[in-house]
Amino acid sequence: MPVVSLLNDGEAGAEALAVFDDIRAKRQTDYVNNFWRALAHDPATLKATWDRVQTVMSPGALDPLVKELIYVAVSTANGCDYCVHSHTAAARAKGMTPAMHGELLAVIAMASQTNALATALSIPVDERFKA
Amino acid sequence: MPVVSLLNDGEAGAEALAVFDDIRAKRQTDYVNNFWRALAHDPATLKATWDRVQTVMSPGALDPLVKELIYVAVSTANGCDYCVHSHTAAARAKGMTPAMHGELLAVIAMASQTNALATALSIPVDERFKA
Amino acid sequence: MPVVSLLNDGEAGAEALAVFDDIRAKRQTDYVNNFWRALAHDPATLKATWDRVQTVMSPGALDPLVKELIYVAVSTANGCDYCVHSHTAAARAKGMTPAMHGELLAVIAMASQTNALATALSIPVDERFKA
Amino acid sequence: MPVVSLLNDGEAGAEALAVFDDIRAKRQTDYVNNFWRALAHDPATLKATWDRVQTVMSPGALDPLVKELIYVAVSTANGCDYCVHSHTAAARAKGMTPAMHGELLAVIAMASQTNALATALSIPVDERFKA
Amino acid sequence: MPVVSLLNDGEAGAEALAVFDDIRAKRQTDYVNNFWRALAHDPATLKATWDRVQTVMSPGALDPLVKELIYVAVSTANGCDYCVHSHTAAARAKGMTPAMHGELLAVIAMASQTNALATALSIPVDERFKA
Amino acid sequence: MPVVSLLNDGEAGAEALAVFDDIRAKRQTDYVNNFWRALAHDPATLKATWDRVQTVMSPGALDPLVKELIYVAVSTANGCDYCVHSHTAAARAKGMTPAMHGELLAVIAMASQTNALATALSIPVDERFKA
Repeated sequence: MPVVSLLNDGEAGAEALAVFDDIRAKRQTDYVNNFWRALAHDPATLKATWDRVQTVMSPGALDPLVKELIYVAVSTANGCDYCVHSHTAAARAKGMTPAMHGELLAVIAMASQTNALATALSIPVDERFKA
Repeated sequence: MPVVSLLNDGEAGAEALAVFDDIRAKRQTDYVNNFWRALAHDPATLKATWDRVQTVMSPGALDPLVKELIYVAVSTANGCDYCVHSHTAAARAKGMTPAMHGELLAVIAMASQTNALATALSIPVDERFKA
Repeated sequence: MPVVSLLNDGEAGAEALAVFDDIRAKRQTDYVNNFWRALAHDPATLKATWDRVQTVMSPGALDPLVKELIYVAVSTANGCDYCVHSHTAAARAKGMTPAMHGELLAVIAMASQTNALATALSIPVDERFKA
Repeated sequence: MPVVSLLNDGEAGAEALAVFDDIRAKRQTDYVNNFWRALAHDPATLKATWDRVQTVMSPGALDPLVKELIYVAVSTANGCDYCVHSHTAAARAKGMTPAMHGELLAVIAMASQTNALATALSIPVDERFKA
Repeated sequence: MPVVSLLNDGEAGAEALAVFDDIRAKRQTDYVNNFWRALAHDPATLKATWDRVQTVMSPGALDPLVKELIYVAVSTANGCDYCVHSHTAAARAKGMTPAMHGELLAVIAMASQTNALATALSIPVDERFKA
Repeated sequence: MPVVSLLNDGEAGAEALAVFDDIRAKRQTDYVNNFWRALAHDPATLKATWDRVQTVMSPGALDPLVKELIYVAVSTANGCDYCVHSHTAAARAKGMTPAMHGELLAVIAMASQTNALATALSIPVDERFKA
């Protein structure tokens, strides 16, 4: 039950359709997932988001799989169910093994608990951790 | 201004001191950071946390630097200032370059905005993303 | 699958029913939405919440539509799916156009990413921003 | 105590300096606030963020002051202290009165409490709120 | 560095001063803490908040100390440093021992990590947990 | 739609099955809930989590029901729907009455709104609240 309808190709405007085509070409698949179909109501945000995500997630100093793991971690901490599903799927597609998934979850769980302890105790930052 | 005092070696009890000694030995440094000194008021939680963090953060299917990047990502999304500082410092110690840091931040920022969009639109999970 | 049952008019007690009646009268509709039906298990909280929401959301220095936009923004950042749906619907009922919705989402996404960057970098507040 | 140093004009590279100049020109002030000085370590993210924020925050279907109020709301829910300060200051500069500020806070507080109630009770979305 | 000034008794208006007096009388202390002094800019919200907090935190089916522990738990999960400090202090004043504090923190940490695991795995709610 | 499949007894490995058996024995029920069945893909995390939760949630300075209330509070603030359901059910099993549930919700809602106010105003911690 999305807050806006998911636009199919017939409903999307020309600008949105151009982004859909680019998604298909870059990903080499005919499938355009729900996130983009919902954003299609606002073609400017659709295009800006798609353009930026490609730049950010492309290979660089960090490899694409590591970036997906980080994405899953943020999505979990932010409680975004859609994002957890879509980026876990993306991480698998980029080579995440079950063992890597298990360790990813263990780190997320560890961080979540020490985050809570540090916040509940208002621990002051050590001088040596400052820039 | 921590919620509890940070126990120095003279104030910590025997059980807490044993953990401090283990931290020093494993990390090959004399320095015990504030997080552990605050947890020392409850030696059982101190020991359980230190034991678990070593298991979780040790090399495995993911390398220790990748685990630190994930830790920073979770800490950022949870808004834990202490944890952002301590784990960014840990990531640097394990080899994170400024370029890697820049990309880490870009992924965190990207995920944060698409998390918000997916949540604000309540996007339903695509069938193909389900296990 | 709510955590408590949603009380229909026959199940709600007299105090809760009085609030339902007030909701119907003020909103000029027969429909009482699920939120109030769940709160009806605790008539005191039901009444306090309904009374306060009317005071807060009524016209003042900010107009009611702007207040709904703010409500959607907070609900998104807090990850409350029910609230995103109900207050997006309320905003539409008060005149939010698709273009306004698009801009609302763009601001929420923008804020989410700069929030993450500021937190990940622990940016100190500029002197000139202090009261 | 930022996680990275705040680059002054002498330390920033040419690309970052060009963004600083653009900030100065667009805002008609010589002052470049800490957020941009920290981002200057990664000129690509600095430029992408600055470009996007201008597009998103410019007048459109919503006026700039309303956008700042939404920004403060998101920043509060995300617990970003820097962002709360900088965007409250921006809202004041764009005409937010103390009365408007008071109502903004009241809506944020109201939403936060009903968000919590809806989540704690896992209220199902009413059919009529669905798109 | 608060976003608004903290009003002292001379600066607060008559309505705010009446709330300050009530705080002093009910708590049997001359001290009015910063939270109320900041809220005093908006006497209506100040009064509504103070009135509601007394109702909610008074003895009932749960005793006041248990309520403070819950308050600290929520404040920690929401990352509110001020609230963690003020309600930990309140809990101590109502009898929280160091052992109780230690257990409170351990439960918060435990919940934080299982919350993260359940979210990262999108665990479906068991039929038997439904109302 | 979990991110991983829920392992039944026939699919779980020996280590995971041993934990399932321990859950059944300790809880005196044949039912193993979905959370553990999802974690069973990573027996080490399954065992570590189950072991720790027993230690943390057992009777101590705080009684088990109070611990469950705190667990529900944290789960609500973190927006974990599964955890809200499972720990509300656990609290009921340990004696939480509807009146206690109502007060729990009222405290969570109260804390959520004052958390938001304190954050939006960046209230400085009073000297007397410091350790």
